Amino acid sequence: MSTSPRRRPGRPTGSDGSARAAIASAARRQFSAHGFDGPSLRGIAVEAGVDPSLVKHHFGDKQRLFLTVVDLPVDYEVLLPRLLDGPDSGIGARLASTVAGLFSDEETRSRLLGLLRAASSHAEAAAVLRERITDGLLEPLAASLGRDEPRLRAAMVMSQVVGMAVARHIVELEPLAEADAEEVARLLAPVLQHYLTADLFAGAAPTVAKP
Amino acid sequence: MSTSPRRRPGRPTGSDGSARAAIASAARRQFSAHGFDGPSLRGIAVEAGVDPSLVKHHFGDKQRLFLTVVDLPVDYEVLLPRLLDGPDSGIGARLASTVAGLFSDEETRSRLLGLLRAASSHAEAAAVLRERITDGLLEPLAASLGRDEPRLRAAMVMSQVVGMAVARHIVELEPLAEADAEEVARLLAPVLQHYLTADLFAGAAPTVAKP
Repeated sequence: MSTSPRRRPGRPTGSDGSARAAIASAARRQFSAHGFDGPSLRGIAVEAGVDPSLVKHHFGDKQRLFLTVVDLPVDYEVLLPRLLDGPDSGIGARLASTVAGLFSDEETRSRLLGLLRAASSHAEAAAVLRERITDGLLEPLAASLGRDEPRLRAAMVMSQVVGMAVARHIVELEPLAEADAEEVARLLAPVLQHYLTADLFAGAAPTVAKP
Repeated sequence: MSTSPRRRPGRPTGSDGSARAAIASAARRQFSAHGFDGPSLRGIAVEAGVDPSLVKHHFGDKQRLFLTVVDLPVDYEVLLPRLLDGPDSGIGARLASTVAGLFSDEETRSRLLGLLRAASSHAEAAAVLRERITDGLLEPLAASLGRDEPRLRAAMVMSQVVGMAVARHIVELEPLAEADAEEVARLLAPVLQHYLTADLFAGAAPTVAKP
């Protein structure tokens, strides 16, 4: 566990903020590219240019490291009022723009895709997605709009947003993979609007009464 | 590589159809539950009650085994004409019922989820999803309806169907996880209809001229 064989000139090796940041950055990149199972603590330490013991020192085990570095950089107390600021008829467009913007930011996209990949095999990552995004943001958003079934509406929004992320960035389905954020926002807007404010079920009345 | 230590009474061990079927069944279950990376050929052989050498004998390497057992049990030459049999205004409902039905069938759902989980870390599995489902079924379906942008429409349908599968069966998002097939079909129908026949972009004309 000596640091010398893996130490590189100019890379952080001490138990300070720069080593922690280097580990977090390497971990985020590797989890985003390979999901939860692929990366090893040793491989992350090598990429960060630090001794593997420092990974454990700063982050504990692999699961704690994962949940720390993929935490979502979204401040709901700012985001929710901003989404609600405007007519209900524009909520789909505002949410779609916000989602497309989050996925345009490389760092945020990397965290979200890391979570998504990990959620496919790890219940803890799936729970983070459910709690932080659906329970923490989408359901309060749907509830604020005052329609019936806010939980179901939040889940449908989540399903389309997750599906768009998988299609564009994981399955790399054209022409979505090459579409820009503005086009993605325009494609999502009417459907997110439908899920948040329309009658959810086909065959029922085509419009829903506003409360 | 002797078969005796792992042989169980009454389980197939010879290089015949029953050994092949037992391996395929165990592989399908393990890939579906754990994705591509988790299962080992040895673990699959143990579950199937056969010697690991038989896995290689019947299926070659892990990737060939995966792509063989998760192949989609959907006959497009039957499915496509059936989906197109009816008014364009019902295509969303017919496709939504078909999708919900496929995911209600345990065997088919297991294959589809295995593919989805594998696609998150393996380009070959992502290519199977693109080629078999989007190129092979959804794009011909969209093209048959005669609207603009059939490839984009197929990709949007795929994004919502994949997102529903992830939300229900991988992230296990309530109330979708506990919803029955009929409810899922009713939720998907108007959105799949929108993607296949409506004007795709918000802010543009609300209806699209029929060609």
